Amino acid sequence: MASLNDIAVGAAINILSAFVFFLIFAILRIQPVNDRVYFPKWYLKGLRNSPLRAGAFISKFVNLDFRSYARFLSWMPAALKMPEPELIDHAGLDSAVYLRIYLIGLKIFTPIACLAFSVMVPVNWTNVTLERSNFTYSDVDKLSISNIPLGSNRFWTHLVMAYAFTFWTCYILKSEYETVASMRLHFLASEQRRPDQFTVLVRNVPPDPDESVSELVEHFFLVNHPDQYLTHQVVCNANKLSSLVKEKKKVQNWLDFYQLRYLRNQSKRPIVKTGFLGLWGKKVDAIDFYTSEVDRLSSEMSFERERISKNPKSIMPAAFVSFKSRWGAAVCSQTQQCRNPTMWLTEWAPEPRDIYWDNLAIPYVSLTIRRLIALVAFFFLTFFFMIPIAFVQSLANIEGIEKAVPFLKPIIELKFIKSVIQGFLPGIALKVFLMFLPSILMFMSKFEGYSSISSLERRSATRYYIFQFINVFLGSIITGTAFQQLDSFMHQSANEIPKTIGVSIPMKATFFITYIMVDGWAGVAGEILRLKPLIMYHLRNFFLVKTEKDREEAMDPGSLEFNTGEPRIQLYFLLGLVYAVVTPFLLPFIIIFFALAYVVYRHQIINVYNQEYESAAAFWPDVHGRIITALIVSQLLLMGLLSTKNAAQSTPLLITLPVLTIWFHRFCKGRYEPAFIRHPLQEAMMKDTLERVREPNLNMKAFLQNAYVHPVFKGGDDGSESEVSLEDLMEEPAMVPTKRHSRRNTPMPSKQSGSLTKVDEDY
Amino acid sequence: MASLNDIAVGAAINILSAFVFFLIFAILRIQPVNDRVYFPKWYLKGLRNSPLRAGAFISKFVNLDFRSYARFLSWMPAALKMPEPELIDHAGLDSAVYLRIYLIGLKIFTPIACLAFSVMVPVNWTNVTLERSNFTYSDVDKLSISNIPLGSNRFWTHLVMAYAFTFWTCYILKSEYETVASMRLHFLASEQRRPDQFTVLVRNVPPDPDESVSELVEHFFLVNHPDQYLTHQVVCNANKLSSLVKEKKKVQNWLDFYQLRYLRNQSKRPIVKTGFLGLWGKKVDAIDFYTSEVDRLSSEMSFERERISKNPKSIMPAAFVSFKSRWGAAVCSQTQQCRNPTMWLTEWAPEPRDIYWDNLAIPYVSLTIRRLIALVAFFFLTFFFMIPIAFVQSLANIEGIEKAVPFLKPIIELKFIKSVIQGFLPGIALKVFLMFLPSILMFMSKFEGYSSISSLERRSATRYYIFQFINVFLGSIITGTAFQQLDSFMHQSANEIPKTIGVSIPMKATFFITYIMVDGWAGVAGEILRLKPLIMYHLRNFFLVKTEKDREEAMDPGSLEFNTGEPRIQLYFLLGLVYAVVTPFLLPFIIIFFALAYVVYRHQIINVYNQEYESAAAFWPDVHGRIITALIVSQLLLMGLLSTKNAAQSTPLLITLPVLTIWFHRFCKGRYEPAFIRHPLQEAMMKDTLERVREPNLNMKAFLQNAYVHPVFKGGDDGSESEVSLEDLMEEPAMVPTKRHSRRNTPMPSKQSGSLTKVDEDY
Repeated sequence: MASLNDIAVGAAINILSAFVFFLIFAILRIQPVNDRVYFPKWYLKGLRNSPLRAGAFISKFVNLDFRSYARFLSWMPAALKMPEPELIDHAGLDSAVYLRIYLIGLKIFTPIACLAFSVMVPVNWTNVTLERSNFTYSDVDKLSISNIPLGSNRFWTHLVMAYAFTFWTCYILKSEYETVASMRLHFLASEQRRPDQFTVLVRNVPPDPDESVSELVEHFFLVNHPDQYLTHQVVCNANKLSSLVKEKKKVQNWLDFYQLRYLRNQSKRPIVKTGFLGLWGKKVDAIDFYTSEVDRLSSEMSFERERISKNPKSIMPAAFVSFKSRWGAAVCSQTQQCRNPTMWLTEWAPEPRDIYWDNLAIPYVSLTIRRLIALVAFFFLTFFFMIPIAFVQSLANIEGIEKAVPFLKPIIELKFIKSVIQGFLPGIALKVFLMFLPSILMFMSKFEGYSSISSLERRSATRYYIFQFINVFLGSIITGTAFQQLDSFMHQSANEIPKTIGVSIPMKATFFITYIMVDGWAGVAGEILRLKPLIMYHLRNFFLVKTEKDREEAMDPGSLEFNTGEPRIQLYFLLGLVYAVVTPFLLPFIIIFFALAYVVYRHQIINVYNQEYESAAAFWPDVHGRIITALIVSQLLLMGLLSTKNAAQSTPLLITLPVLTIWFHRFCKGRYEPAFIRHPLQEAMMKDTLERVREPNLNMKAFLQNAYVHPVFKGGDDGSESEVSLEDLMEEPAMVPTKRHSRRNTPMPSKQSGSLTKVDEDY
Repeated sequence: MASLNDIAVGAAINILSAFVFFLIFAILRIQPVNDRVYFPKWYLKGLRNSPLRAGAFISKFVNLDFRSYARFLSWMPAALKMPEPELIDHAGLDSAVYLRIYLIGLKIFTPIACLAFSVMVPVNWTNVTLERSNFTYSDVDKLSISNIPLGSNRFWTHLVMAYAFTFWTCYILKSEYETVASMRLHFLASEQRRPDQFTVLVRNVPPDPDESVSELVEHFFLVNHPDQYLTHQVVCNANKLSSLVKEKKKVQNWLDFYQLRYLRNQSKRPIVKTGFLGLWGKKVDAIDFYTSEVDRLSSEMSFERERISKNPKSIMPAAFVSFKSRWGAAVCSQTQQCRNPTMWLTEWAPEPRDIYWDNLAIPYVSLTIRRLIALVAFFFLTFFFMIPIAFVQSLANIEGIEKAVPFLKPIIELKFIKSVIQGFLPGIALKVFLMFLPSILMFMSKFEGYSSISSLERRSATRYYIFQFINVFLGSIITGTAFQQLDSFMHQSANEIPKTIGVSIPMKATFFITYIMVDGWAGVAGEILRLKPLIMYHLRNFFLVKTEKDREEAMDPGSLEFNTGEPRIQLYFLLGLVYAVVTPFLLPFIIIFFALAYVVYRHQIINVYNQEYESAAAFWPDVHGRIITALIVSQLLLMGLLSTKNAAQSTPLLITLPVLTIWFHRFCKGRYEPAFIRHPLQEAMMKDTLERVREPNLNMKAFLQNAYVHPVFKGGDDGSESEVSLEDLMEEPAMVPTKRHSRRNTPMPSKQSGSLTKVDEDY
């Protein structure tokens, strides 16, 4: 077990490495040539067009103002200076609220640490249990609960502390939930007019032999929301088209690359092989080849565009229905439309940027089956992921490879290669798996059929958290694979499980301290360097950039990546809460992590990240729920630990803690969660009324017309054709006569409705 | 263990007793004097005014037509003859759907029993395991899974059967859910215009210093539902008034009783003692005393009425808001009104008869705390109810009583009293508790704050089911109190628990067969006799009845009592599903129970029961969920049982069954449950449109005016005053000027709104 000295050395090393990272960052960021890597947000917002300083040619690339090197930590106060309202304005509510997660960490753990060090550490320290015992122990253990003799009355201190910590955490959680909920409501209320405020996503439109999807949607909403319905847009299945667009972009990149190369060195036209990865196949002239490829893809795209517009089967049974007022949209999104609850499903439309277009047309039965499959798959992924990795590792020994591919034997036998294979390959299999884990989880969420990117990320985050909890947290405490744990838990009684885990907890404190320093401190400091985007930007800048627009695209600002970032923070909450009572010595390390991460991410959010969507902090209930989970886990484990310490008389008092915590969670869920899911009519009505007074002659229809067109049909990367069709949309739409004569109640379609039916014919 | 012979004897006894019950019933029911006991439904519906046969004086009391005695089972085909649509018309959807629960039992278990007897019984029978073993065994056991040798391949039969039974049950459940959901929707759609279709119950109206509750409600809905709002009625706290009404009724009964006695025997005026229960106190003239009591209560009531109308504090922060159309009510009930989700809570109003008035004004925080307390209380009730009973039992021994009250010693020492105390008292404590259990559970539900009687009953039913499951089902299998079970489960591993229970299951088959015969067969046959209402009716008829109206009130038709009846049926589902694979011999007994109960309850529903409310089968999701629970329990127990039979290789196959069943449940929940909770706008709009065409000049406001007045304010038991005030309601209401000037957006109140504000002043 590590002593205080070891930990001090570890801390020194990690502080030093963090310091080095900051130093490198400080140097790199003030070089004008890196300006677009470290300040892309300002470029994207149009607030900056070139590095701030201008001057001699050389100073375009290297910063020669040496005074700026001296103030190398100046970005920290700068990052903290921007007030929250401005931050929300600058980077969106999602980012601002994301930062509050770190703040919560500070708010929860700083007072807890103070209390723990002033009360619990003296209580623990003034015992001699460990000195008298035969165990090897370190100074860290002397500060922990391990130093209290069995059945001592001093455990009452820990019990009282557990109550105090629980109440403090719940208090902070409640006030934060309240703040975030009101921030969200205020954000939504003070927002500019946005199409998603008026629009509802309708899924599972039932098939109808008489009418097209578009007509059906129009008639249904004219009948059932006669005063409110304004217009709608059907969803086309443009998955193939969008993959063509992507491919064209890639080919275009290669074309640009070879053209640039030819420009720089006109002596020889570049040559390329047409086969796999350019490794073999016929040699052809690169520029000609890629030009023809671009042409081919363009014609394929226009053919596909044609096909989508002609073929009624490419219209998916989903639509974006827009209403005349926010009230109408709020009503429609919260009510059931049809007696069959799996048809005409309505939900408030996500932002246009936030939509995951591929998933809009999955029928209800398929959705439930997909959820089941994903559940089973995730179970196996979590508990059995070691099996394929162990298999790969078993293959990756020398004898295995020699047997499988005997002709490689002479190469493998080389000493260097042999040591690489033996040393790295087994580890690499695991590393590669862990690297791909977020993508695997994201794929699962996509398979489950969520319709917005934000919900996909939230779902992935939940899964990532569970995976981490089982394989990192429990896996480190009870060594063994997740499946071995599951097996042993199945064979243990319900009150043995917390004991088994609880007993091992104090022993793992030093391990987790090291983990926090490496993964937390150094990891966060590394984040600010942005090594990968830095290299990628300079590569692209050198090989591909011809115009200013290309340079814009070469920037990779990245985003917060909620699906991996948030679960990682949650691990620290879990560790902090679990160890708060057991080994309070761990708390300062966690506080430093939260403080550091808060500053670094605030800087990144202000200067770098560019959020792809804005969900108005819709993720907060998840964050809250996971901290509550951590709290309950910590209470159960403390109960297990104390019951092995002959302090079983505390069990009834400890068991009320999780009950109260779960009740608190339910209370918060009822009190605050609706603000994140539902849409109060009062607010909608207020905004509608205000708007009607301010802009009585607003042409809502023109505003909503093209908001929910699939991005491949929108302008941007491939020009004119689509823009023409977009202008068509603005025309007064044709009337849609209903082909069905039995439905007498259908009112005549108003002049303001039925936009896309015409559009469909125009594509 | 009971042999086949024992069971045959038991069956014979129980069949005989059922037969005797039916015989007595057949004789009693055709006596004209009992007509109002056995056919109250027809009287209440106004379809019958006197016994069908008329003739000589004596035949008014005794049936002398001896032919009718011969056909003593004729009521059975008569009960089955009424077709379901007519039954719905006659007794409401609740009753008709309640009968379907028995039908489901028949549908599930008849094919299962056939399959089990044709496949599994031969497989079990043709073994010699039990013969060779040293255990005592009966023929029943030879038919059960106990007769299969350890690790035999014959267990595959049981595995396949478990799959077949699960799929069959799920299939029946799904088709029933579908049928009931469409029955409900059809019932709601074809219903007459009813006030609750247009009305929403609003709870937690926030306090406002400027405006009264009534004004606040009006303004809020005029602003937020301007096109749809029609009128509203505030809720008064009339709990005291309604208890006064109840007391007056009781005193009036005594007055009637003494007046009648005096009429019959005018020689001496009746005397009554004023003290406790009439046992001691001053002797007074009974008629004078009760007349003055009635007067006192009448004046108190009018004072209380005055107080309610004058005091604004008696207006509770809740209101019934009515809309111009069903669409408006559907929208309002499904949406969130205010940004604070604990204020302005809306839900579709229950039927006026169904409302539980006392609970309408509980604030949100109090509700969540009440739920927590009820949860904890229920936990202790379920697991520790034996402790107070054991305490009473320990008191109820001779020595204890002698010590506590030494002066009673001479009485207690009498032999007869001693044997009574020793023999009955311990058992009586338990019986009394079990008798009061439904009331205790109902009290808990009321404490939790549900606002309609139907939801109170559903909640109590859930609790009753859990209590039965733990204390009757598990308690019979693993003998010991619930707490001992809980304790042993806590100390067992998760996969030991199903084993522990599973092993004991085959051994308890004969016990449960006896239970089914006594509780099921004889109990159901006893139900039809209606012994208690029969006696009560004749007592009342003799002592109290003066007028025809009194006779009407003396009838006690009773109702289905969902809160105890349904969980009792569910126990049979549980037994049937658990034993289907293990001891199929139990199935015929269950089938007989379901068939018998179906006929008996169909007869009772047609002729006797008078439902107090109509919830349109809102209980079906609960019924479905509990059968699913039984299915999952049966699968887990089978898994436990097989794993002790060295057939562990079947575990992976068996564990997929609960996973699939849970998934099936989730699927059904998503697919059908909304039909029981939400209100499709399409349906509402259709009915609205139809109605507008048929009755364009309908005065909706007059129709809705008094629908939701507290029953004590309605006419009926105390005459003129309230009827006057009801007529006041019909007047054109005064305009309510808003006292608040800051709210500029408030439209002027329409002429059609603000009814009860005036009424409040008139009371």
